[in-house]
Amino acid sequence: MQPQGKIINDPVYGFLHFAEPEVRSVIEHPWFQRLRHIKQMGMSHLVYPGAVHTRLHHSLGACHLMGKALEVLKQKGVSLSREDCTAARLAILLHDIGHGPFSHALESSLVEGVTHEMLSAMMMRRMNEEMDGKLTDALEIFDHAYPKKYLHQLVSGQLDVDRMDYLNRDSFYTGVSEGIIGYDRILQMLTVVNNELAVEEKGIQSVEKFIIARRLMYWQVYLHKTSLGAELLLSRVLKRAKELVQEGNTLFATPALHHFLSHRLTQKDFEEDPRHLALFASLDDAEIFTAIKMWQSAEDPVIATLSQMLVHRRLYKTQLSSQPLDELLEAKVNEFKKYFPQFSNEVIPYFVFTGVTQNSAYNIDDEKIVIAMKNDTIKDISEVDNALVTQALAQSIHKNYICYTVSNNHIL
Amino acid sequence: MQPQGKIINDPVYGFLHFAEPEVRSVIEHPWFQRLRHIKQMGMSHLVYPGAVHTRLHHSLGACHLMGKALEVLKQKGVSLSREDCTAARLAILLHDIGHGPFSHALESSLVEGVTHEMLSAMMMRRMNEEMDGKLTDALEIFDHAYPKKYLHQLVSGQLDVDRMDYLNRDSFYTGVSEGIIGYDRILQMLTVVNNELAVEEKGIQSVEKFIIARRLMYWQVYLHKTSLGAELLLSRVLKRAKELVQEGNTLFATPALHHFLSHRLTQKDFEEDPRHLALFASLDDAEIFTAIKMWQSAEDPVIATLSQMLVHRRLYKTQLSSQPLDELLEAKVNEFKKYFPQFSNEVIPYFVFTGVTQNSAYNIDDEKIVIAMKNDTIKDISEVDNALVTQALAQSIHKNYICYTVSNNHIL
Amino acid sequence: MQPQGKIINDPVYGFLHFAEPEVRSVIEHPWFQRLRHIKQMGMSHLVYPGAVHTRLHHSLGACHLMGKALEVLKQKGVSLSREDCTAARLAILLHDIGHGPFSHALESSLVEGVTHEMLSAMMMRRMNEEMDGKLTDALEIFDHAYPKKYLHQLVSGQLDVDRMDYLNRDSFYTGVSEGIIGYDRILQMLTVVNNELAVEEKGIQSVEKFIIARRLMYWQVYLHKTSLGAELLLSRVLKRAKELVQEGNTLFATPALHHFLSHRLTQKDFEEDPRHLALFASLDDAEIFTAIKMWQSAEDPVIATLSQMLVHRRLYKTQLSSQPLDELLEAKVNEFKKYFPQFSNEVIPYFVFTGVTQNSAYNIDDEKIVIAMKNDTIKDISEVDNALVTQALAQSIHKNYICYTVSNNHIL
Amino acid sequence: MQPQGKIINDPVYGFLHFAEPEVRSVIEHPWFQRLRHIKQMGMSHLVYPGAVHTRLHHSLGACHLMGKALEVLKQKGVSLSREDCTAARLAILLHDIGHGPFSHALESSLVEGVTHEMLSAMMMRRMNEEMDGKLTDALEIFDHAYPKKYLHQLVSGQLDVDRMDYLNRDSFYTGVSEGIIGYDRILQMLTVVNNELAVEEKGIQSVEKFIIARRLMYWQVYLHKTSLGAELLLSRVLKRAKELVQEGNTLFATPALHHFLSHRLTQKDFEEDPRHLALFASLDDAEIFTAIKMWQSAEDPVIATLSQMLVHRRLYKTQLSSQPLDELLEAKVNEFKKYFPQFSNEVIPYFVFTGVTQNSAYNIDDEKIVIAMKNDTIKDISEVDNALVTQALAQSIHKNYICYTVSNNHIL
Repeated sequence: MQPQGKIINDPVYGFLHFAEPEVRSVIEHPWFQRLRHIKQMGMSHLVYPGAVHTRLHHSLGACHLMGKALEVLKQKGVSLSREDCTAARLAILLHDIGHGPFSHALESSLVEGVTHEMLSAMMMRRMNEEMDGKLTDALEIFDHAYPKKYLHQLVSGQLDVDRMDYLNRDSFYTGVSEGIIGYDRILQMLTVVNNELAVEEKGIQSVEKFIIARRLMYWQVYLHKTSLGAELLLSRVLKRAKELVQEGNTLFATPALHHFLSHRLTQKDFEEDPRHLALFASLDDAEIFTAIKMWQSAEDPVIATLSQMLVHRRLYKTQLSSQPLDELLEAKVNEFKKYFPQFSNEVIPYFVFTGVTQNSAYNIDDEKIVIAMKNDTIKDISEVDNALVTQALAQSIHKNYICYTVSNNHIL
Repeated sequence: MQPQGKIINDPVYGFLHFAEPEVRSVIEHPWFQRLRHIKQMGMSHLVYPGAVHTRLHHSLGACHLMGKALEVLKQKGVSLSREDCTAARLAILLHDIGHGPFSHALESSLVEGVTHEMLSAMMMRRMNEEMDGKLTDALEIFDHAYPKKYLHQLVSGQLDVDRMDYLNRDSFYTGVSEGIIGYDRILQMLTVVNNELAVEEKGIQSVEKFIIARRLMYWQVYLHKTSLGAELLLSRVLKRAKELVQEGNTLFATPALHHFLSHRLTQKDFEEDPRHLALFASLDDAEIFTAIKMWQSAEDPVIATLSQMLVHRRLYKTQLSSQPLDELLEAKVNEFKKYFPQFSNEVIPYFVFTGVTQNSAYNIDDEKIVIAMKNDTIKDISEVDNALVTQALAQSIHKNYICYTVSNNHIL
Repeated sequence: MQPQGKIINDPVYGFLHFAEPEVRSVIEHPWFQRLRHIKQMGMSHLVYPGAVHTRLHHSLGACHLMGKALEVLKQKGVSLSREDCTAARLAILLHDIGHGPFSHALESSLVEGVTHEMLSAMMMRRMNEEMDGKLTDALEIFDHAYPKKYLHQLVSGQLDVDRMDYLNRDSFYTGVSEGIIGYDRILQMLTVVNNELAVEEKGIQSVEKFIIARRLMYWQVYLHKTSLGAELLLSRVLKRAKELVQEGNTLFATPALHHFLSHRLTQKDFEEDPRHLALFASLDDAEIFTAIKMWQSAEDPVIATLSQMLVHRRLYKTQLSSQPLDELLEAKVNEFKKYFPQFSNEVIPYFVFTGVTQNSAYNIDDEKIVIAMKNDTIKDISEVDNALVTQALAQSIHKNYICYTVSNNHIL
Repeated sequence: MQPQGKIINDPVYGFLHFAEPEVRSVIEHPWFQRLRHIKQMGMSHLVYPGAVHTRLHHSLGACHLMGKALEVLKQKGVSLSREDCTAARLAILLHDIGHGPFSHALESSLVEGVTHEMLSAMMMRRMNEEMDGKLTDALEIFDHAYPKKYLHQLVSGQLDVDRMDYLNRDSFYTGVSEGIIGYDRILQMLTVVNNELAVEEKGIQSVEKFIIARRLMYWQVYLHKTSLGAELLLSRVLKRAKELVQEGNTLFATPALHHFLSHRLTQKDFEEDPRHLALFASLDDAEIFTAIKMWQSAEDPVIATLSQMLVHRRLYKTQLSSQPLDELLEAKVNEFKKYFPQFSNEVIPYFVFTGVTQNSAYNIDDEKIVIAMKNDTIKDISEVDNALVTQALAQSIHKNYICYTVSNNHIL
């Protein structure tokens, strides 16, 4: 009896198998293990208490789906070597490696201007050096430089296994069945035409459902007004902390957190000095949340109040609207001033503010979803008969939001 | 249209409804919200990456099952007032309120000698004062002092909704289907005989399955050797930290954590000075884990090494055996000395040690499971014809374990 | 302990409860029990082997959902008496009572011109007489004559519990996850505005998903070309049988089947002579299928061949197209003539033919789906911001089909 | 893109793949297609309305699990050729081919003394001739004559894929979660030791759960008193029909049914004259049920009454007991005589009777379940530490039953 590699239980798909030594090395890497402590859905668990699953779990799941997709393609006669397959599995396993804790909030505060995509690329390069070039092919797939173009599309495209896993997994853990997709059937329908990922004609309905599920998950979960408010509250807490530290105030912080609160770093800084990346790679949700708990008793009343709101779940009241919210903003600012006279005008935007959020289900200008028709032609999914996925769906939808603080914010 | 109370999505049961104002007040209480940041299964997520669900979620789920159970009893003619029902729902909602982060490890280190049951009782009393006595009935149910005895049995007994929820939920989140129980059917079979909770005769099989599921979850999940090893590693880290702080060494710690590292507190201390409880109630997983991450660079090589092992998932190797493991212990100690000559003999027990763990599926001496037979008699479940639940199952099973550290511990 | 009524296990929803005596009487009625032997999805099990669930099961499930819906409405303050609720449950329980075996095929052959809706109405009236008027309210709901109009809409409307159950159940039994709907959430969002059924604004996404799920189930399952072909084959078998019997040929048939093969009955006939309805109510899938098995050895080669094709699953080849199929028809007719010279021109339409099938996801002219907006206005779902459900979706889609017989039809 | 064989949706496992041409030929064979019309669980749908799944579906599912099991064994280094695998898949696909409609009732009436195992063997031989010997290996596996002994054990043994599928499938379709087994994990734990199927030590709990699940399904579903009563009622209907026909009475029957009502056939008869087998292979549930519907108006009041009881679901009242039921029998006979004076003493056993049924969860004398221990020894599962599967479980349990007819039998 020979060894069978690593097997991990996953409530979403059952058993996940990781047989390739390179894949196992990546999984064991501290930078990958760090993803255990970064929640996939950030603050959404304040609305959906089940949504505490991690980026590590998502990455493992996406890697599993990649294996399934490659198996289907091989069965259909697509020529794929062991090396191709391992590289594709590694590429998707690493696709989220650069995510920090609460990524969206972080990118607008602690590491403003440095995206998680940049960080992922830098971290993968660093790991490739450590691993003697074993990630080179994976990096090429990631960078869209690998000759088998469809492998990149499986990692990042309209029908990639990243989306398939996160829709399924987020749906599973939130308990919102709206996002369930027939991933098994979509995978079964995948094929390759002219070096491009395509879907067999009889899979059109499944792809439509996938796109609709994404749209619905956006409105119901990802842009849920309470989650959105919590995410915005977090980014204001961090922004205030950075402001305070840069003005020379003392604030509880771990060394890594202090580093990012006290420096304004650019992508260039990260590239030139590896310590920035090493410190970034030690941050996680626990460290951020612990600091915020401490900040509840900070001297600055703004950060203390915001931190208490976040820790005790007395979140902003949030409203979404397709109309501008200027009038409401004025009213809420006045209300706030009445109840909280202790705050000066200049800090009110920490407590009452408006903004815009957006969502597009199917980005028609971006990569297209190619349908392999039975008569051997190809079409974009928006061009088939009775297409559900049309210009209308492809349009970005902008929603205005307002967040405000009331005297007695409700919790849960 | 009237308000409908709070509705929360739960992937395990669907929608959970919380209509009672008292229940909602407890949910909104900071001490309850704190349970969001305490994982139900401690370190098990190192083996089952999905097992990151929280004690808050478990408490909400158990409260939901309590509602279902009470509904069934009412349908069967058991007289239950609105007050009875709310009190029972509050009692179960609060049953875990005293759990600290990583309870088992904590109880053997930070707050040695003070159990989470004691802490729960103290916290509930404190909250009852805050809430003007609205928890008095719930406390009586909890303390087994309420006249309707079966309500206590639903909170804490062989067939309580606590177990029903955690078996189901842990099974769901780990992906180990072995623990799935037909909770719906068990609830349907509940009845009351002579003021005692009982199960209708035709529900025997479901109860048997419940007891077996618990047994299997113990061996496969709760006492999984790798989880056990991780739990023991954590408790050694905390023990070492306490040792170092009490010897006067400086170690990174938040104020609350420092408090418990530097004091040896008894139940009496907690009762006499409310500050102890307040500080305890501010601890969570994030705070402990953040400290351990910092301790990786502590001066003391013992705590630094143990902390690195935990953070990077290079856990102890663990073996279980029904035989004593003295010989193996000696061999592993010698091996350790060879590879790690830098450590003195007295700290070796931090790296290589043995112990005993145990499990009993059905504690026959404890509360019994009463079966309401069709012929209007009652029997204990171990006494029915062809009982599966017998003396054999009721016996505690003791297993010896050994944990040891090797030069190159595997991860994941 | 009091009796709790009837409890039935349902893999789709768990336990179904039937407490009301009138509901139980209907369930026990032979005409209702007959639905056990009529498959909900007719011939679809030839494509989806799991799809063998019955109309009885669907009717019980829809009745369960009705109970859930009424509970939600009551929680929201809609005034509903016990009588209202029982009547609504009875109405939905009986909504399919007039379905014969393989309804669609039957309505175009055995009882041409008499729809299952007419038959349901007649059977309900007959049962109401037997039950001393206990179904009077249910009949009024069914006939849209009950003052609480929204109860009719729950029985038959864009968002009725009939559709909710069949989408869910058909999805479950076929294994086509595309049809899964978040019925629990839709029910939770129901409300009543101006005596009309409406959906709360925050339920829009769930309703959209429901409409899309229906669209997808149509294309993927209900109008699956192989099922469609099987359904059409069955109706040709029955048509031929009727032709033969009316021409005076002898053909195996049970008395009831013989009755409908040898008579052309109108609705008036059914109303005037109760024996027609009694005989109709004794037919089921088993009786029809048994006859077809016998007809495999009939003298007439047309019915013998068609029957063998159906029993041995050597079905028509079927193609769907948005274009007319006249040319292909001519080619396939010629091919057929070449391989099967024994058949005269006039019977070729039994083996090769074209037709049109159609589907509309949301019938905009029909009853609308009313959304109760947060600002207390109401809108149709096609009029809300960023509506997915638009004119485009509302359009009926017509598809041409061709069925033909080849020398060696594949099976399974 | 190459063809991928046949893919079938299964709600239990997702997609089933059938790539091998021999497997597809068997699936297309009319004798296999016949299994579409034979319900896996006979009359159980009268208790569990969802339990209408067919033997065809079960056979396809078991074939799928066989493929999964073989994949696991190959991954562990067991040498298996393409031919071995196809033969094993064919063997399990055909294992139920000899089942008639309502097998248990049939074997005690229509074909008394000829078991479905004998019929399966004969039918497989006949099909092998038709298929030019392509089933020879499969037959050897079936007959325990194939050198790779463990393949037979996968077809028929304590841990065969037949049981795994039927427990899972029956559990799924009845909605009784008690029978759910972690089949995925059991399959993953399979291995081969000394040419025998074995289970890795860490799979013990899963196997225990499997055995317990079987035990529970027996008591809760397979031997459910109402199902048992329905099964016994059916066998009495058929027995009476045979009696009547053999006494020269006329009774509605299709030719095949008439053949078996009018002849008493032995295994030898079947072997000598192929027409018996051909007629047997044309019977299905529909044909039997249709006849019973007709018999409701037979002249003989015994068969007419019994048939009405079955069709209208006015079943026997049934009780199970570990004690003899002689006294109760006498009482019920007297009651019956009082209410139904029209029936003579000699036909009373058609309406009131007693009997014995039995069940053994783990047949210890039969094939054992071999556990491959970590220390390279093997043990029977009843011999491992803290075995749950012991002598006690292995004992057959006998239960007495009584069925009786009351004046107004309840239905549903």
